[in-house]
Amino acid sequence: MPELRKDPIIGRWVIISTERGKRPSSFSTPERKPTGGFCPLCPGNEDKTPPEVFAYRPHGSLPDTQGWSLRVVPNKFPALRIEGELDRRGEGIYDKMNGVGAHEVIIECPDHNETLSSVSVSHFEKVLLTYKSRINELYKDTRFKYVFIFRNQGEAAGASLAHPHSQLIALPVVPKRLIEELDSSREYFSYKERCIYCDIVRQEKEQNVRMISENRDFISIAPFASRFPFETWILPKRHNSSFEETSELLYTSLAEIFSEVLRKLDVSLGNPPYNFMLHTSPCNEKINDYYHWHFEIIPRLTRVAGFEWGSGFYINPTSPEDAAKFLREVSPTSVSK
Amino acid sequence: MPELRKDPIIGRWVIISTERGKRPSSFSTPERKPTGGFCPLCPGNEDKTPPEVFAYRPHGSLPDTQGWSLRVVPNKFPALRIEGELDRRGEGIYDKMNGVGAHEVIIECPDHNETLSSVSVSHFEKVLLTYKSRINELYKDTRFKYVFIFRNQGEAAGASLAHPHSQLIALPVVPKRLIEELDSSREYFSYKERCIYCDIVRQEKEQNVRMISENRDFISIAPFASRFPFETWILPKRHNSSFEETSELLYTSLAEIFSEVLRKLDVSLGNPPYNFMLHTSPCNEKINDYYHWHFEIIPRLTRVAGFEWGSGFYINPTSPEDAAKFLREVSPTSVSK
Repeated sequence: MPELRKDPIIGRWVIISTERGKRPSSFSTPERKPTGGFCPLCPGNEDKTPPEVFAYRPHGSLPDTQGWSLRVVPNKFPALRIEGELDRRGEGIYDKMNGVGAHEVIIECPDHNETLSSVSVSHFEKVLLTYKSRINELYKDTRFKYVFIFRNQGEAAGASLAHPHSQLIALPVVPKRLIEELDSSREYFSYKERCIYCDIVRQEKEQNVRMISENRDFISIAPFASRFPFETWILPKRHNSSFEETSELLYTSLAEIFSEVLRKLDVSLGNPPYNFMLHTSPCNEKINDYYHWHFEIIPRLTRVAGFEWGSGFYINPTSPEDAAKFLREVSPTSVSK
Repeated sequence: MPELRKDPIIGRWVIISTERGKRPSSFSTPERKPTGGFCPLCPGNEDKTPPEVFAYRPHGSLPDTQGWSLRVVPNKFPALRIEGELDRRGEGIYDKMNGVGAHEVIIECPDHNETLSSVSVSHFEKVLLTYKSRINELYKDTRFKYVFIFRNQGEAAGASLAHPHSQLIALPVVPKRLIEELDSSREYFSYKERCIYCDIVRQEKEQNVRMISENRDFISIAPFASRFPFETWILPKRHNSSFEETSELLYTSLAEIFSEVLRKLDVSLGNPPYNFMLHTSPCNEKINDYYHWHFEIIPRLTRVAGFEWGSGFYINPTSPEDAAKFLREVSPTSVSK
């Protein structure tokens, strides 16, 4: 059983996933991947994944058969296990609990060679609606406090399979980064009676130097204190605390701007590896005045070294103003129809 | 002039180092390094670095000439600039200041092909005493609030030059990670009237499952909530809040255990890339009851992906108990005499 352990000093939770257990010897040589050939996420290999928990497939077609256009399956090597109780307990000064959670893979499309930036905007919308649907489904399980959605594009960004996919981890605790953002936003609100992200949206629109793009409902920006070159955030223009409580009507314009941003990054940086993640309010405070959901996209262009790891202090060699100007001016690649 | 910018939400400072400025095009293809040949840190090339600020060299030998056994020079491409005032100011809701600071390179030994784990223990001690000396020297400049020491070993850990070296960055603000550790340690102390790190040392010695090694003055452990496989901390056994205020008498036994740990990691993991960093009290609260200086060593064996970046939540596939057992049992390589 994996274990969740809390750092006694700064309160960060860590998953000790011993069942994925790596012995020292497995680190000594770079892992070699089977090249070419078999992909467990491709159509025809539905029996090589755990049974699907969600899919877009033709009316009447059976689960775990071909014909799907999007499929969600439990991760075959999950970091957390869905069964069991949390059993929070101490060990001297330390705190731990069982590694209970869900770990799912969102197989975004059947074609192995597509990417999220090459699929049609309407297909992109399906992916986003799937996130919404899975989050709502998983929150029916009261053991879960936060569902975290993220995507690794490219091996350098941590993707172990090339087939287009995102991931979801349902956690019995709220991650530290989110707690920090929620605490600070709450504090700002109690002082100013305004959402700090709404203030950011307002200032970015006024200054117009870090804006990348905008549509009816969303803006994309290079954030003022970008940690990484070409870091990009997508935020709703009007206050909105919960991604999964957002009306389906907004998902089309979210898909439009998200697709456009990814395509602009592809053109500017030559299909870079990247990570993106959703930050939204936890399930026990979904609707509130102070927090504002958003996506953070981080192209993986620079190595993170000792300084950053040890200090939480980042050195960014490209100003967000330069990055935004470049991304504003570049034409995105077109998408398939 | 580089700029220091504060993330308005979680208060993290970022260095926007535009003078190291990278245009989008410089990211599109992997950087190629000149292979073989010239190294600006090797003896004979003293004129290729900025003038040295510290050195171990034979009595009477001139600065910036050959014959040194250790040399400290300003970084030729510094992330921060030593000249100027901070000029803290706002920009709407954002906060920023000039990127004032020091960025130095500690050239650990003349031989390009040594590593910190292959130099003699007495030479290792010189490196550690150099850290102490530079920190004390830089704190004479009252603009600096924290001096951060770190080391990147290997390209995968962010080292851009192969010649053995550590780095130092003197900052006008205390890094967020340190503030978190200091705040939590202070809180623990105010409740328990004990240092949390002293409690960790005590529990680790008692449980004896995450201990790696021990000598008269120090222990090395795999921390309970290790973020990474084979993460290792070195801590003084008796309460000690400030690295640079520590008696020189302890530096021999620090060099002994530090060298041993690095050599054990080399044997176990095949000379892995790693980062290490010093965590110690800031200059305005050097001597205190609640904080305890330590080194954190992080072998870079796994890729950090979207989940970790976005959540501050880590998945570690090797339990610290397994890592410690392995490292305890392995014989370290010998060092040069």
